[in-house]
Amino acid sequence: MDFQNWMTAVQQRTERALERLLPGPDIAPQRLHRAMRYATLGGGKRVRPLLCHAAGELAGADPARLDIAGCAVEMIHAYSLVHDDLPCMDDDVLRRGKPTCHVEYDEATALLVGDALQSQASCHVEYDEATALLVGDALQSQAFHLLADHVLADEPSNQLDMIRLLAQAAGSRGMAGGQMIDIEGTGQHLSRTELEFMHVHKTGALIRAAILLGARCGMPLPEEELARLDHFAKRVGLLFQVIDDILDAEGATATLGKTAGKDAAQGKATYVSAMGLAEAREMAESLRAEARTAIEAFGERGRRLHDLAHFIVTRKF
Amino acid sequence: MDFQNWMTAVQQRTERALERLLPGPDIAPQRLHRAMRYATLGGGKRVRPLLCHAAGELAGADPARLDIAGCAVEMIHAYSLVHDDLPCMDDDVLRRGKPTCHVEYDEATALLVGDALQSQASCHVEYDEATALLVGDALQSQAFHLLADHVLADEPSNQLDMIRLLAQAAGSRGMAGGQMIDIEGTGQHLSRTELEFMHVHKTGALIRAAILLGARCGMPLPEEELARLDHFAKRVGLLFQVIDDILDAEGATATLGKTAGKDAAQGKATYVSAMGLAEAREMAESLRAEARTAIEAFGERGRRLHDLAHFIVTRKF
Repeated sequence: MDFQNWMTAVQQRTERALERLLPGPDIAPQRLHRAMRYATLGGGKRVRPLLCHAAGELAGADPARLDIAGCAVEMIHAYSLVHDDLPCMDDDVLRRGKPTCHVEYDEATALLVGDALQSQASCHVEYDEATALLVGDALQSQAFHLLADHVLADEPSNQLDMIRLLAQAAGSRGMAGGQMIDIEGTGQHLSRTELEFMHVHKTGALIRAAILLGARCGMPLPEEELARLDHFAKRVGLLFQVIDDILDAEGATATLGKTAGKDAAQGKATYVSAMGLAEAREMAESLRAEARTAIEAFGERGRRLHDLAHFIVTRKF
Repeated sequence: MDFQNWMTAVQQRTERALERLLPGPDIAPQRLHRAMRYATLGGGKRVRPLLCHAAGELAGADPARLDIAGCAVEMIHAYSLVHDDLPCMDDDVLRRGKPTCHVEYDEATALLVGDALQSQASCHVEYDEATALLVGDALQSQAFHLLADHVLADEPSNQLDMIRLLAQAAGSRGMAGGQMIDIEGTGQHLSRTELEFMHVHKTGALIRAAILLGARCGMPLPEEELARLDHFAKRVGLLFQVIDDILDAEGATATLGKTAGKDAAQGKATYVSAMGLAEAREMAESLRAEARTAIEAFGERGRRLHDLAHFIVTRKF
């Protein structure tokens, strides 16, 4: 299967899995469950489930297990977007771009384009702030419920390790901590080291968790292979963020599907503001090279991860 | 050890355990970790850890395990208070009562009195809304981290059951779901059945989880004993809420340590608004009787649970 088809297939099975793993819209309290589904279903690039599946295939994991692990990570990601859009945080009224996109593009493109180009109001606009707050809270619980409710590893003790890994990636020493650093850094000039510290937490931790959880769904990998994968995961996590910053700085709003230049307008510290566009691009190239090198020894087994790094670097949204 | 001394001892060891199990105030990001500690440490009745220890003792559990399980539940409770105080929810600026209490009472009383009489501004007032949002999010992650990071059961698969139990109790079919129902019910007349449905979720689920997690830290109990304990847990969860409603309706602000009559002012559906004070008191008495009957067969082993039900019914704050 070529990369494009593989990606579409994983995105589609992730969507179906999320539909199945979220409480149904008619289960009480209906309003909360509908809002959770609104915030999670119907698009997104699903980068984290893609990375989870790619790493899992490398370890020979059952795709059904990868669906669960990928959805758990995606639910944490979705909750973070909902909370991040709240007025006390970034105060976004639109997530997933311009309302005309569904019309302008066909469905398959829309699914692929995902996060950026789908028309959807922020959860707290479509519902209200209190509901959006609870949606995020409940999505986080649901993610941990998933990891405890399905068999994901042959040894239950390994599954406990997986839960600890996701909890650490999501918590104060992971994603939530990175958001705190982001808020504190707004309006300040951060050095490259400080920026990296922020993004290792804010974006990197969950991307790393997606990859490591995927691998742990499969056959135990030798220490050396796990270390390689971890190195790849860390580079890709940063790469994702550098590209995000570049797209925000240079992307046209129309292509990006969200307001370009928002970081600068909000006084956010980014790689572009810290080092300029040209150097940020160089950094992205060198991160991609490091990521490639990290998984070179996997050969054909690392093909999907290799292609995903390429996708992340060349994405326009 | 008499009940009063036992209670103080468990409250004190819970405080020490929380101090140890929360990331230190000097670990980056310091602001988030300090705010997490602010929101969690320094008081509270610690009803949930008390119930956890009481149920655990009944099952012969190692107190060190009960500290972990009790703290995990308490972190979920603390996160819910922080989010509940946010302007988009209940918009409370004070949690834990009048600023004069530390001065008016001695330290031991203050510890016992806990939640109600300690002087502390809401997390979003002491810090800011964005930080408070992240505090709640990160406390939830930390709770699940605890349950996966320590040995709590002889079989890791039993520990996975415990994580699933807490996730369900915290999520959309538990506490977060109950808060959604509470918001939807505000300003409306709810029947007793609807009220019970709300509170089984909002308050009951986490109290039940505290008791069941405590028991699961110990020797496996026979099905019949677990069923009894579960019945007790459900009655006590409701009892706690009925008493809460009665205290809000009849308590003087000074004794209660928070503004009395707040439920009525906010148009909240309560047992008192649904059935009147006299009938709510009768209901509390009959719930207490049911709770007692449920654990009668435990004899002396159920003494702490018995005393805790009494404490919950006779508390004035």
